[in-house]
Amino acid sequence: MLAASAAGLGALGLGGLGTQAHAQSSAAAGAKPLPAVAAWKDPKAMIVHSSNTLETRRAAFGTSVVTPTNRLFVRNNLPAPDASILEHRDAWTVAFEGVKGPRSLTLADLKTLGVETVATVLQCSGNGRGFFPSKPSGTPWQVGAAGCVLWSGVPLRTVIHVLGGAEEGMAYLTGTGGEKLPEGVDPLTVMVERSVPIKALDDALLAWEMNGEPLPLAHGGPLRLIVPGYQGVNNVKYVKRVALTREQSRAGIMANRYRMVPPGGKGNPGLPSVWEMVVKSWINGPLSEEGALRAGWTQIHGVAFAGTREVRGVEVSIDGGMSWHQAQLVGPNLGRFAWRQFVLPVQLSAGTHVLVSRATDAAGNAQPRERVENNSGYNNNSWLDHAVTVTVA
Amino acid sequence: MLAASAAGLGALGLGGLGTQAHAQSSAAAGAKPLPAVAAWKDPKAMIVHSSNTLETRRAAFGTSVVTPTNRLFVRNNLPAPDASILEHRDAWTVAFEGVKGPRSLTLADLKTLGVETVATVLQCSGNGRGFFPSKPSGTPWQVGAAGCVLWSGVPLRTVIHVLGGAEEGMAYLTGTGGEKLPEGVDPLTVMVERSVPIKALDDALLAWEMNGEPLPLAHGGPLRLIVPGYQGVNNVKYVKRVALTREQSRAGIMANRYRMVPPGGKGNPGLPSVWEMVVKSWINGPLSEEGALRAGWTQIHGVAFAGTREVRGVEVSIDGGMSWHQAQLVGPNLGRFAWRQFVLPVQLSAGTHVLVSRATDAAGNAQPRERVENNSGYNNNSWLDHAVTVTVA
Repeated sequence: MLAASAAGLGALGLGGLGTQAHAQSSAAAGAKPLPAVAAWKDPKAMIVHSSNTLETRRAAFGTSVVTPTNRLFVRNNLPAPDASILEHRDAWTVAFEGVKGPRSLTLADLKTLGVETVATVLQCSGNGRGFFPSKPSGTPWQVGAAGCVLWSGVPLRTVIHVLGGAEEGMAYLTGTGGEKLPEGVDPLTVMVERSVPIKALDDALLAWEMNGEPLPLAHGGPLRLIVPGYQGVNNVKYVKRVALTREQSRAGIMANRYRMVPPGGKGNPGLPSVWEMVVKSWINGPLSEEGALRAGWTQIHGVAFAGTREVRGVEVSIDGGMSWHQAQLVGPNLGRFAWRQFVLPVQLSAGTHVLVSRATDAAGNAQPRERVENNSGYNNNSWLDHAVTVTVA
Repeated sequence: MLAASAAGLGALGLGGLGTQAHAQSSAAAGAKPLPAVAAWKDPKAMIVHSSNTLETRRAAFGTSVVTPTNRLFVRNNLPAPDASILEHRDAWTVAFEGVKGPRSLTLADLKTLGVETVATVLQCSGNGRGFFPSKPSGTPWQVGAAGCVLWSGVPLRTVIHVLGGAEEGMAYLTGTGGEKLPEGVDPLTVMVERSVPIKALDDALLAWEMNGEPLPLAHGGPLRLIVPGYQGVNNVKYVKRVALTREQSRAGIMANRYRMVPPGGKGNPGLPSVWEMVVKSWINGPLSEEGALRAGWTQIHGVAFAGTREVRGVEVSIDGGMSWHQAQLVGPNLGRFAWRQFVLPVQLSAGTHVLVSRATDAAGNAQPRERVENNSGYNNNSWLDHAVTVTVA
C-alpha cells in the first residue's frame, strides 16, 4: 500500500490506470448445472466438474479471508445421504470407541459439552492436480478445491475426556462417515473411513456449524469431524463413529487410496497418506480472464497457508520467479490453521507478465519450484504450477 | 468446558440431559415476506419489520464469530438505489473533497490503491430500542440489528494520502450516500450524509466486498464507507462523496436525528451524536423459544463488543444478576472492532432462570445495569434489558 501511495497523484494523473480484475465473472457458456445437494451455491462462482465435485473459480475467492459457504468447493467420495438426516439434527448419533467408557452420544448431548470455533483451510488433497502434465485420474482441480472456513462445535478432546480418556495403546483417530453404501460391493472398497495420527486429537472438532449456519448436507451436516491442518478427506462428513484405534482403517480410502504413490506404482499402507497439508500459496488477482488489465498500479493478492503451521511470509514475483518481493500479510489472522491473505502493490507495464507467489511457514519450509510427482496428483504446492499469466494493454 | 468435562460420565449417565436450543427455528406464522432487495436472505433467520428493516433472530446468530450475509440485518434510511448501479461496479464514481487534490475516482481506480480487510461489528444505533418501556418511535429492534462482518476494500487514509492529504483545519470525515432523493422535499431533510470526527480516518475503509462477496445492494454496494467501531448509520452506503470538512453535515440525519435527546426534548446539533459504539453483550443461547430445555449441563453463549476497544472480559449470571461468573472468550479474535464470542458451561436445574451477561472493555468500562433513557431509544447497552429467561423442564 505504501508503494502505491508513494506513486501519489502522479500515478492517478496518468488516467489510464485501473483494472477490471474484480468484475464479476459470468458462468461459462454451456456449464453444467449445480447438483441438487448444492443448488444454493453461487453458480457464477463455481465450476461444476460433476455432481460430487464443484470447484471455486479462482476469480471468486475475493479478499475477505473467509470463503463464503455459497462459494466453497464440494468434493464427496460418495453421494450425500438423504436430506432427511437434517430434519432432526440434534438426534444424530455418534458412536465413540477406543475410550474407557465407550458409548453413543447424540448431537444434543455433544452440544452440552462445549463450544469452540476454529478457522481452518479445507482443501482437497487433489487441489492442483489439474497442473500435472501426466493428467492423473481424478478431478483436474486447479486452485479452487480449497477454502477457509469457520467451524463451530465441541473440541473432540473434551468428549474423549468425558468418556474417560483413550484406552491404552491407541495410535490413531479414526472417523467413519454415515453415507449409504452401495449394495453388492465389499463395504471396505467404498466406505469413507479415515485415520489420522492421534496427536490430531489436540485440535480436532466435532462441528455442527459452518460459517455461522447449521452445517449444510453438502458439507457434512449434521456433524463433521474437523481435523485442522489436514487435507480435506480426513475431515469426515456425516460422522457416525469416532474411534481411537491401534491400527489405521483397512478401508480402501485409507489403505490404498489417498497415498503418495510414485509414478507407475500402486497404493499400499506403507506409503505416506495425505495427512497434514504442505505450505502453499497462490495468486487470486489480478487475472486476465476477468477483464482487460490496464498499465499502472495494481494490487497482487492471494492466499497462503501451511497446514498446522503459521505462515511466516509470502514472496511474490512478477517475472516468473526470477526476482522476488516480500508481500504484506493483511487482514485478520484467524489462527495457524487458517489461510492468510497477502497483498503486493506493483506497477505493471504493457505486455505479458508471469505472476507467482511462494510462501514460507513458521518452520522455514518454503514452497518448492516443482511439484512432487505422484500417481494421483496429490499435494501439489509447486509455485511454478500456480503461476498466473496476465496481459496488460 | 473444563467444568462440563469435570462432570464427566456422571453427568452423561443422567441420560435426560441435552438441549434442543440449537434446533432450526421456523418462520413465524404470518410473517411478512422478505423485500425484493433482500429476497436472498434466509427467511428462517430474519424478522421482517418493514421493507427497509430486517432483524436477525436471536437464535440465528450461531457461534461462528462472523455473521453470514444471508442472516445479517438490513436497515436503510431511504429505499436502495436501482439495482442497475451494480451492473458496472468498477465505474462507480466517488468525489473526494477537503483534500489538497480534490477529484473523483472510480471504483476501478480505488482498487489499484490498496487492499485491506477489517472485521467490524455493524450495529444500528437503535438496536435494543425494543426494550425501552417508553416505546420510542422507530423499529423495535431487540438484539438482531447487529452482526459481525468482514469488509474488504482500500483504507481511506491511503486514498487521502494519494490525493495530497487533508486541507488545513478539517475536523470531520463526511460521507454522502448515493440514494435517489424523493422529489418535492428539501434534500437536507432526507439525504443520508453523516459526519464523524476526523480521527476515524485512521481506521476507515472504502469497502467493495463483504464476507467474501461483492457488496450486495442491500448492504451498500457497490461501495460503502466503513467506520470501524461506529454505529451503523455512520457507515454510509452507495457512498458517492467523501469529504473532509470543517463542520458537521447540516443534513437532518446528522443535525437533528441520531442524537442522544433527553426524554421529551428535541434533536439539535449540540447533543451527542451516535458515533462510537458502547460496550455491550448479550446471550444468544440457550433460548427457551428454540425448544424444550432439559435439566443438566448447557453452554451459555453470546457475543460482546466495545466499539473501538477490545473486550477485556464477559461475566455471566444465571440468577438475574445477583451473582456473576467469568465466561471464557472463545474462537478467533478478529481484532478490536469485531465481536468476541463468550461461553460459560453451567448446570441448570428444573425451573426458571434469568440469564444475563455483562461485558467490560479494555478501558475498564462495564455495561451498566440500566439503559440511558433517550427519546429515540439509541445506544441501549443495559445488561438487564438484554436478559434471557429460560424455563427448564
